[in-house]
Amino acid sequence: MTIREEVKKMKLEAPVLAASSADIRSAALLLIKENLEKHAAEIFTENGKDLAKAAETGVPAAIVKRLKFDEKKLQDVAAGLVQLAALPDPLGKKTLSRELDTGFVLTRVTCPIGVIGVIFEARPDALVQISSLCIKSGNCAVLKGGKETTYTNRILFTIIRDSVIAAGLPEHSLLQAEQHQEIDELLECDDCVDLLIPRGSNAFVRYIMDHTRIPVMGHADGICHIYVDAAADPEKAIPVILDAKTQYTAACNAVETLLVNRKIAPEFLPRLDAALKEAGVKLRGTKEVTDMIGGETITDDVFPEYLDLIVSVKLVDTVQEAVLHINRFGSHHTDAILTEDADIAAYFMQMVDSAGVYHNCSTRFADGFRYGFGAEVGISTSKLHARGPVGLEGLVTYKYLLTGHGEVVGDFASGKRSFHFKDL
Amino acid sequence: MTIREEVKKMKLEAPVLAASSADIRSAALLLIKENLEKHAAEIFTENGKDLAKAAETGVPAAIVKRLKFDEKKLQDVAAGLVQLAALPDPLGKKTLSRELDTGFVLTRVTCPIGVIGVIFEARPDALVQISSLCIKSGNCAVLKGGKETTYTNRILFTIIRDSVIAAGLPEHSLLQAEQHQEIDELLECDDCVDLLIPRGSNAFVRYIMDHTRIPVMGHADGICHIYVDAAADPEKAIPVILDAKTQYTAACNAVETLLVNRKIAPEFLPRLDAALKEAGVKLRGTKEVTDMIGGETITDDVFPEYLDLIVSVKLVDTVQEAVLHINRFGSHHTDAILTEDADIAAYFMQMVDSAGVYHNCSTRFADGFRYGFGAEVGISTSKLHARGPVGLEGLVTYKYLLTGHGEVVGDFASGKRSFHFKDL
Repeated sequence: MTIREEVKKMKLEAPVLAASSADIRSAALLLIKENLEKHAAEIFTENGKDLAKAAETGVPAAIVKRLKFDEKKLQDVAAGLVQLAALPDPLGKKTLSRELDTGFVLTRVTCPIGVIGVIFEARPDALVQISSLCIKSGNCAVLKGGKETTYTNRILFTIIRDSVIAAGLPEHSLLQAEQHQEIDELLECDDCVDLLIPRGSNAFVRYIMDHTRIPVMGHADGICHIYVDAAADPEKAIPVILDAKTQYTAACNAVETLLVNRKIAPEFLPRLDAALKEAGVKLRGTKEVTDMIGGETITDDVFPEYLDLIVSVKLVDTVQEAVLHINRFGSHHTDAILTEDADIAAYFMQMVDSAGVYHNCSTRFADGFRYGFGAEVGISTSKLHARGPVGLEGLVTYKYLLTGHGEVVGDFASGKRSFHFKDL
Repeated sequence: MTIREEVKKMKLEAPVLAASSADIRSAALLLIKENLEKHAAEIFTENGKDLAKAAETGVPAAIVKRLKFDEKKLQDVAAGLVQLAALPDPLGKKTLSRELDTGFVLTRVTCPIGVIGVIFEARPDALVQISSLCIKSGNCAVLKGGKETTYTNRILFTIIRDSVIAAGLPEHSLLQAEQHQEIDELLECDDCVDLLIPRGSNAFVRYIMDHTRIPVMGHADGICHIYVDAAADPEKAIPVILDAKTQYTAACNAVETLLVNRKIAPEFLPRLDAALKEAGVKLRGTKEVTDMIGGETITDDVFPEYLDLIVSVKLVDTVQEAVLHINRFGSHHTDAILTEDADIAAYFMQMVDSAGVYHNCSTRFADGFRYGFGAEVGISTSKLHARGPVGLEGLVTYKYLLTGHGEVVGDFASGKRSFHFKDL
């Protein structure tokens, strides 16, 4: 069966999944956990096949770490499933209840988005996280994972889908796509798919956006900044910068550009330079920075996303100049100020136009788990719908329900009746 | 100056408008009202030029009604401005406040989207409504109205912009585009414009969506349904159907397709037919409908948006069949059930996947003013961000603010510290 035919069936069953009780959806998550644990040995065997193939083809060690699905990863996803099952139901919440006129009541209730396509990197734990977030939020999901974990994805998906059906949810709640060409097929399904969430490189997300009419939620890049103010405490600043740069360099919330106030530069830059060198981080500075401490000189208008142990450094005179730089060169992802001056911090928090604006802490905190969302399907740099880490709340929409007794607009237009708008 | 240059300036000033106090933004609305009233005579003179041109070029009477900006329209927009000024500030609302660990606090606050482009039909009152909604919500706006009201738009825009500046808001808060080619220029500004709201025909909205990378909020069409259940009360059903079809035929929330339960068809269809004929509505039915009551016969798979005094009629056996038809052929705008059976109504409300799902009332209630939002910038059939009539709430996004004392992710990853997630 083609993806299109499968997704059409899914679309028809989406309202049934949407109407399922919170108890059944949570029970499905616990059943997934149970069955993953029961089939642990088989999962590890299949994962072994992926790892063997990775070794054959010379995949770098950093990537292999992501492909691996071992006892520790199984424990993590199991704990995540239990946590997610225990979270309150995101569906059917009344967010507005208003009497328009006597006995004529408007209600706004949360409901699932419908059918969501998620295209993600080769990480087996991501498959479990994403599918469980979709089930908890009552959304049907088409899942396409990285090809480097084909064997692991296949067994995980089978266990998850079987558990979901066994728990009493619709047969077509979940679908796995395995072939790369199926992505292009999925992009054409704008009458059946309500949302696409692509995870991966900038170029990939851009490709998806340019080749579909389906709404896309994804971040295109993460050029995060830290502004070291004149009133920064260097004892806090150095560890925060090191964490933001080195704790996980490949992450979109790693810092890429440091803006340092000119007043403290002569004192701060040498300390920063020493700390970065010790951590193996290469510094690229504008001319006045490298005049002071050496390093590679860069021009004043290109500040890239490195995703590596490299950082750009530029000097600014004021917090205003820092904000202008960030709003112009940043990607509206996550940006931080380090300062002990509360007024300057408040200005920065108000004026920076990013999904996350931080004071005196690492940009690496931008993450659904660290925000207490249980898990995330991604981090959005779009300003519409969900912004920042996207958990359950980002996977729901709402509808307006209006209940009357034969009301017609003509009566309100003629003045025979009138609205009184009483919030209930 | 080109649109691109103007919009770039706007983008830089957007954070300043976003940071302005609610008092100043509300005062600006009241100043707009005052100045519109003060310059009423000049506005009517300019509107006269548009009306004269419309008469010359033979614009139909129904359209001329929309172009007209007279004392009554002025009173309406003035009342709207007062109402909007009095609404609570949509900005700076804390929607989440959570301590991640001791003294380490995450807050989510509402903020404006930024720069919004609105392209709307030739209706001078729409210009006032849209610009005032944007100002109240702290958004910069690029406004492009229909060319048939060029003179009226120009004077209204000048009064509005001058009032906004006089109230103390940034100079580049509002911009008017007058030339059609400026729309294409605007579509290219994906680095400065955060959202486009096109209002108009299906084809026009589709054109915008297909020619820009800027997120678009708009409805593509409005094929609204009314399902007349076996348990419907004909005394309510006939007036509701007439209102939904005839109260304003050109509106997207007018009904286009009636689904009638087979059990009551023999009794109900003749009454319906008589009522529609009396109201001048042409009925187009599937073969079994026209076999019963005559009229033009249609095939079972094309149910268009007429925006005219025409309605499609089809028979169904059950509420389930009605729901399947609506979810398949509808546009997820607004759909209603007429029934006295509470269980059947509940099923319909749950299962229909539309922005508005109504019980025993006219589809014409789908409107920001009638929902008590003060006004609307449009009605969205997208499921992301805002769904249904879009008022102030649909014009804001949020950002996450995180305030710490030197926190690094490394400490949480190593287990030295741990999250406790306390909602404050």
